[in-house]
Amino acid sequence: MANQIRPEDRECPLSAALAYVGDWWTLLLLHDLFDGYSRFDQFQQNLGISSSILTSRLKTLQENGLVERHPYQTNPTRYEYRLTELGRSLRPVLVVLAAWGNTLRAPEDRRMILVDTETGVEAEPVLVDRTTGKPVAGDGFKFTAGPSAGPVMRRRYVGEDE
Amino acid sequence: MANQIRPEDRECPLSAALAYVGDWWTLLLLHDLFDGYSRFDQFQQNLGISSSILTSRLKTLQENGLVERHPYQTNPTRYEYRLTELGRSLRPVLVVLAAWGNTLRAPEDRRMILVDTETGVEAEPVLVDRTTGKPVAGDGFKFTAGPSAGPVMRRRYVGEDE
Repeated sequence: MANQIRPEDRECPLSAALAYVGDWWTLLLLHDLFDGYSRFDQFQQNLGISSSILTSRLKTLQENGLVERHPYQTNPTRYEYRLTELGRSLRPVLVVLAAWGNTLRAPEDRRMILVDTETGVEAEPVLVDRTTGKPVAGDGFKFTAGPSAGPVMRRRYVGEDE
Repeated sequence: MANQIRPEDRECPLSAALAYVGDWWTLLLLHDLFDGYSRFDQFQQNLGISSSILTSRLKTLQENGLVERHPYQTNPTRYEYRLTELGRSLRPVLVVLAAWGNTLRAPEDRRMILVDTETGVEAEPVLVDRTTGKPVAGDGFKFTAGPSAGPVMRRRYVGEDE
């Protein structure tokens, strides 16, 4: 997937993120990993995915540094997969996507929800600016060229500020 | 893409969300739309995408209710595309993905950032629980079966709470 980025898109952090998680199965695998599944046969059963596709997806996750493989058995050697710190840092992406998916249903129709691990109280995830606490939605925030913006981003954004 | 969901995955809000945005180009098109681009030739130039793929992606966005087409010229009739309310509700997904993409770079190397529209001050989007304000990352929150969980979600989650 990373190979599908055009050189000029390498500037865009959204494209960069999609190079990691732009594949449908990757996010579902991350969901399994976050929920504590770690073994090939568990992923295969949960996702109904062929061995060859699963092998290929896990390899990509490893190459991208999102998961690590650890042996849990010898003779024969079997491996389990664990999220790396980089992989765990993708949790907000999953939570936001699942929360959006839930907005498509009436509250009483939801099949999976997010709860506080200690209290069991349902959470309502919202995206806010860390400093001001303002909700990051609507027109209150906009994308603009960053400190190292190249020609593509400057063309896209700088004109509007001049 | 929606057709690729297995019947048992229709339960999962993450799968449901991916049915809408699991396609690489969809999120890049939404980015263009959020940034104020609205016309076919603008999308084509920004994304370096073939006419046929772009036509197909825009049609999917319309069918999914994320964009609407409005005529802006007659003889010949030309259309522009605008986000619907449902489409605009995907903004946090884009923001979270772009923010994650930016974590792959040193701060001074970032090419696109999010700023407060009024003040121009850079934002740092974080996902928090609306009620408690607790950051939704790490182990503080977990997914669990929702009020209408079917067999798949119950198998996946209910066991751990019993």
